[in-house]
Amino acid sequence: MYFASDNAGPAHPKVMEALVAANDGYAMGYGADDIMGDVRARIREVFEAPDAMVHLVATGTAANSILLATMAQPWETIFCSPMAHIHEDECNAPEFYSGAKLSLVPAENAKITPAALRASLEAEQTRGVHGPQRGPLSITQITEKGTVYSVDEIAALTTVAREFGITTHLDGARFANALVSLDCTPAEMTWKAGVDAVSFGGTKNGLLGVEACILFNPDLAWEFELRRKRGGHLFSKHRYLSAQMQAYLADDLWLDMARAANAACARLTEGLRQSNTVELAYQPQGNVIFFSAPRALHQRMLDAGATYYVMGGDVTKGDTDERLTGRLVCDWSMTDAGVDSFLALLHG
Amino acid sequence: MYFASDNAGPAHPKVMEALVAANDGYAMGYGADDIMGDVRARIREVFEAPDAMVHLVATGTAANSILLATMAQPWETIFCSPMAHIHEDECNAPEFYSGAKLSLVPAENAKITPAALRASLEAEQTRGVHGPQRGPLSITQITEKGTVYSVDEIAALTTVAREFGITTHLDGARFANALVSLDCTPAEMTWKAGVDAVSFGGTKNGLLGVEACILFNPDLAWEFELRRKRGGHLFSKHRYLSAQMQAYLADDLWLDMARAANAACARLTEGLRQSNTVELAYQPQGNVIFFSAPRALHQRMLDAGATYYVMGGDVTKGDTDERLTGRLVCDWSMTDAGVDSFLALLHG
Amino acid sequence: MYFASDNAGPAHPKVMEALVAANDGYAMGYGADDIMGDVRARIREVFEAPDAMVHLVATGTAANSILLATMAQPWETIFCSPMAHIHEDECNAPEFYSGAKLSLVPAENAKITPAALRASLEAEQTRGVHGPQRGPLSITQITEKGTVYSVDEIAALTTVAREFGITTHLDGARFANALVSLDCTPAEMTWKAGVDAVSFGGTKNGLLGVEACILFNPDLAWEFELRRKRGGHLFSKHRYLSAQMQAYLADDLWLDMARAANAACARLTEGLRQSNTVELAYQPQGNVIFFSAPRALHQRMLDAGATYYVMGGDVTKGDTDERLTGRLVCDWSMTDAGVDSFLALLHG
Amino acid sequence: MYFASDNAGPAHPKVMEALVAANDGYAMGYGADDIMGDVRARIREVFEAPDAMVHLVATGTAANSILLATMAQPWETIFCSPMAHIHEDECNAPEFYSGAKLSLVPAENAKITPAALRASLEAEQTRGVHGPQRGPLSITQITEKGTVYSVDEIAALTTVAREFGITTHLDGARFANALVSLDCTPAEMTWKAGVDAVSFGGTKNGLLGVEACILFNPDLAWEFELRRKRGGHLFSKHRYLSAQMQAYLADDLWLDMARAANAACARLTEGLRQSNTVELAYQPQGNVIFFSAPRALHQRMLDAGATYYVMGGDVTKGDTDERLTGRLVCDWSMTDAGVDSFLALLHG
Repeated sequence: MYFASDNAGPAHPKVMEALVAANDGYAMGYGADDIMGDVRARIREVFEAPDAMVHLVATGTAANSILLATMAQPWETIFCSPMAHIHEDECNAPEFYSGAKLSLVPAENAKITPAALRASLEAEQTRGVHGPQRGPLSITQITEKGTVYSVDEIAALTTVAREFGITTHLDGARFANALVSLDCTPAEMTWKAGVDAVSFGGTKNGLLGVEACILFNPDLAWEFELRRKRGGHLFSKHRYLSAQMQAYLADDLWLDMARAANAACARLTEGLRQSNTVELAYQPQGNVIFFSAPRALHQRMLDAGATYYVMGGDVTKGDTDERLTGRLVCDWSMTDAGVDSFLALLHG
Repeated sequence: MYFASDNAGPAHPKVMEALVAANDGYAMGYGADDIMGDVRARIREVFEAPDAMVHLVATGTAANSILLATMAQPWETIFCSPMAHIHEDECNAPEFYSGAKLSLVPAENAKITPAALRASLEAEQTRGVHGPQRGPLSITQITEKGTVYSVDEIAALTTVAREFGITTHLDGARFANALVSLDCTPAEMTWKAGVDAVSFGGTKNGLLGVEACILFNPDLAWEFELRRKRGGHLFSKHRYLSAQMQAYLADDLWLDMARAANAACARLTEGLRQSNTVELAYQPQGNVIFFSAPRALHQRMLDAGATYYVMGGDVTKGDTDERLTGRLVCDWSMTDAGVDSFLALLHG
Repeated sequence: MYFASDNAGPAHPKVMEALVAANDGYAMGYGADDIMGDVRARIREVFEAPDAMVHLVATGTAANSILLATMAQPWETIFCSPMAHIHEDECNAPEFYSGAKLSLVPAENAKITPAALRASLEAEQTRGVHGPQRGPLSITQITEKGTVYSVDEIAALTTVAREFGITTHLDGARFANALVSLDCTPAEMTWKAGVDAVSFGGTKNGLLGVEACILFNPDLAWEFELRRKRGGHLFSKHRYLSAQMQAYLADDLWLDMARAANAACARLTEGLRQSNTVELAYQPQGNVIFFSAPRALHQRMLDAGATYYVMGGDVTKGDTDERLTGRLVCDWSMTDAGVDSFLALLHG
Repeated sequence: MYFASDNAGPAHPKVMEALVAANDGYAMGYGADDIMGDVRARIREVFEAPDAMVHLVATGTAANSILLATMAQPWETIFCSPMAHIHEDECNAPEFYSGAKLSLVPAENAKITPAALRASLEAEQTRGVHGPQRGPLSITQITEKGTVYSVDEIAALTTVAREFGITTHLDGARFANALVSLDCTPAEMTWKAGVDAVSFGGTKNGLLGVEACILFNPDLAWEFELRRKRGGHLFSKHRYLSAQMQAYLADDLWLDMARAANAACARLTEGLRQSNTVELAYQPQGNVIFFSAPRALHQRMLDAGATYYVMGGDVTKGDTDERLTGRLVCDWSMTDAGVDSFLALLHG
């Protein structure tokens, strides 16, 4: 009953096997390993983007920050939702790398709407040199609250962005979960919908720690490399990143793992809907659920061994009827038994 | 005959085993994993430093940069040798993280001398608010040229540093190679000799990619953690870093690997000394050799399959008698056969 | 009828005289001039703060940014209102100097309320190392919208701030206008009400370009000096800054100028209240007025030679009945005749 | 006998008059004042550069840092001499603004030679992404030691720079002193000799505090403006900067002042050459002299009221015969009587 985070689960055994297999003899460092050549080709194929820049880093914060630093100028502001990971959970890393600031665009269901984006863009930069200038848009897919932008919704946002001359970054820490939820192609969810850059996450979906950074227009590829190195994110023994990503993409392992996580989440969602005391805060479309429940219920679940985060208050103290929000995340290794145990406990 | 770098060799099989073993079920992220608790205790034990701050990152540049940023202020200058990795090979990362600049202290045998340090320190900060202020000293052990500071030499430097009120960082990317070369304890080579902070490298000595950051005075531990996160260097699935370091320290694996690398290097050095055409640029004391040889010799070796870097000129073009400098690095997996093949080729 | 900004008016003749008088022979540079000694003593006297750090810079953005950088850490967030000059009109300078980000606290009448501050502080930093940490509060007095915090309101905010262990900065670009509005002492409006640092503005109130930076606790005075120099804001011929500030404080010139500006503003406000078509957006308490009026009225005023900013739309295009917001600012040199001309035009 | 610095002397009376004249009524802020339009046109005319970007700041450190930040990338290194003001006397400001580091090119007579520049450029960036990339060259004219690059020497340096694809910045804090020394045109000393950007100093030559920033290729003009604002260096009451520069350029006042300073320096140099005890450290070509003399002599001069800096030791303590280096700087207001008093004292 471990629903604390999809970064708490194990890596897939096939990934571990690939890692061990890669550990053979000498290999060129710093991304010049043979495996990386294959990974780059494979990602370009998957994204139908033969010219795209593809580089690997080991953390999602690094992927987002270095991509955004490459896209934004230090006197600009990056548009994102108030729940954005880059705003809430990266301890100023995007600002550190880019020098830019963040402008929070109001969101519905954790998703920025075209109207809200337009209003925020219009509100900025009416002050010439005095205010920050308009920088890139960054959206998260699936969102931090477990909802998913449709392809049309993404396209509507990038259309507004382009109208104002700005580019779009997609934080795909849970890219695969969105993809299988939408049942579309990577190209459809990204560049065909107007997205310019992607943090293509693997860590939350069965890898040890690898994210691919993709720029569909490779003009700034060398700048990206220099920024990665300057941030200390270029790995000498790079083959161990490459090998993970190679295994991830082989035989659609990444999609299988995302499907498993989403299925577990759907089963869990269905069970939660049966409850009279529990209320879903958002309609889960990927592998993340937010729900409210009385403090007493949370306390009972946690005491019984369920593991998940409860927001906004101490579970052990205060009015037992007060409703607090819990977050449940399913990783690729979550089993039906795990879900059912949780639900049995809930309903029991 | 692969002598290009100690980061081109494989990780030790025991490390891979530990990684696989750690991949079991759920584990707390971000350094709260159980293995990390053990690693922290073990490093404190190894360094006889029960209060020391111990955190892990995945690259040497990150270790150096985040430690130096914690030790230096943005208006200071960091004292290092002109060959320092932080100066030559980190693409401004130490400056990026710290805001400080670097002052190059002339070195002999790639080692800063107390007299040179004193002169550099006296030369700085005679201009009040106008010049940069004196920041920490950073030394590399073993040095970038393969030489080793004796414990007394380190103590002599830190004595000067402390006289000027500054702290000392030790870039120990090849810490183990130095330790077995000096046959002293980690404590003797660091805090007992006046060192305040250590980048305790594992990547070049048989790990996939882990460095421990050690601050003997833990007052700035929380600042370090925030700087690590802000740099994107906090790993969610942290157990995979912890597991590597745990295996590294178990049963003195780290020392065994360093001894193997140094022994291969000694064997290679001995062979080079037999040659009339080759000249050692420095007296190798660890696992790194710099030697000069005529261009024609380098070309012959490389053509025959030896792999190593040649500095300062194109091997394939120019006067065949011109002497160019080559660098040979032995990693833990280098075999006697590999060394002997190289020497046979050289003398053949 | 020039109401565009209080930084568009002339400096007071006495200030010019002081500048000319200071231009005699040689003087020590970089703040070591004799006049600065007197200025420092005088400001400490005015603020009843004998130990306070007092330094001068030439722009308000520099004053705010260097003070905030001294007060905040790069991994923190600074709390301010959504209308704050540091957020809207300094092109990321506070972020550039400090490395911190800004958190926008909802404001009423452009003033942060204790409840809103508490909510924002509670919302931040519940995520440990992942989120930004709580940094200083920055309030603007008079606010960007022309309202004034009472002494009690300031004290209520700093009480909340101190409860959370954070310090308070007061952006006093129009400090004098607030002081004469409240009819209190500088000490009462600042440190006695819990304020830790002040940007004590002179530029908008009759100087050519000088702001004093005050830290009531001088522990970080040397850091401030280094940050000022590192930002290029230490003047070699510093006497010309000192002389302005000396003249400003002599014989209460600063208060006289603020009273004149506020009086002109009050006269203007009274006239606006007589109009049926014009509506005050805020209750003006200093020298700044925001009012709404139909586009047609703005266009008529501007065509007739009134000079002021109209926000949120093009005055020359669009529905003539649409209400747009105009801003009127009175500087110390605004005359009754100027005000009356404007009002005559409005009512005519 | 005040020879401490050319920033200790007064501003020229004509400059003060211009300042007072500019203080009339309302004027647009932030560089939109009418005087600035004239200044821009005049500087373009003086430099025969009709398209050049021209902006004003108030300090030399700001001029150098913002120009270099516009020219350099954060992963680059800026080439300058070890005596460069940007290296020694700006407390990391160039690094702060640009993110780049500085590479020190050995200098002769405080001037970088083409051979030394070439060697430094070749030494950098042979390490691909690992080392810093080659950034702009920055030279100082007149140099910090009082020597002057000939036009041919400048051209030889920029030729090397362009060969490596880098641009050249000229720190002209004492631009006018060099110009009258060389008796050439501003265009000849700058863009015709391959210089791309100039810090055109006025502060050390009779202004209160104004430097013009010139980019001959205006492509990055808007970036410069944003960087200036972001650094807090955009003046609201900009007319007071404009008025100084307008007076500076009117009727060749700037050249007259530089000629006066250089003439005083020449008279002083001639007198020093008569002395047996004093030795010139460099051949003075502008308004700055470095000379060595026994400690006892320095002490006698300073005790008698001469004011200047002595480097490298305490004048009041130590061997009276030890030779210490003194620096004498003449500003535009230095009189023959002042020089003669100094020389009489020296020889007396």
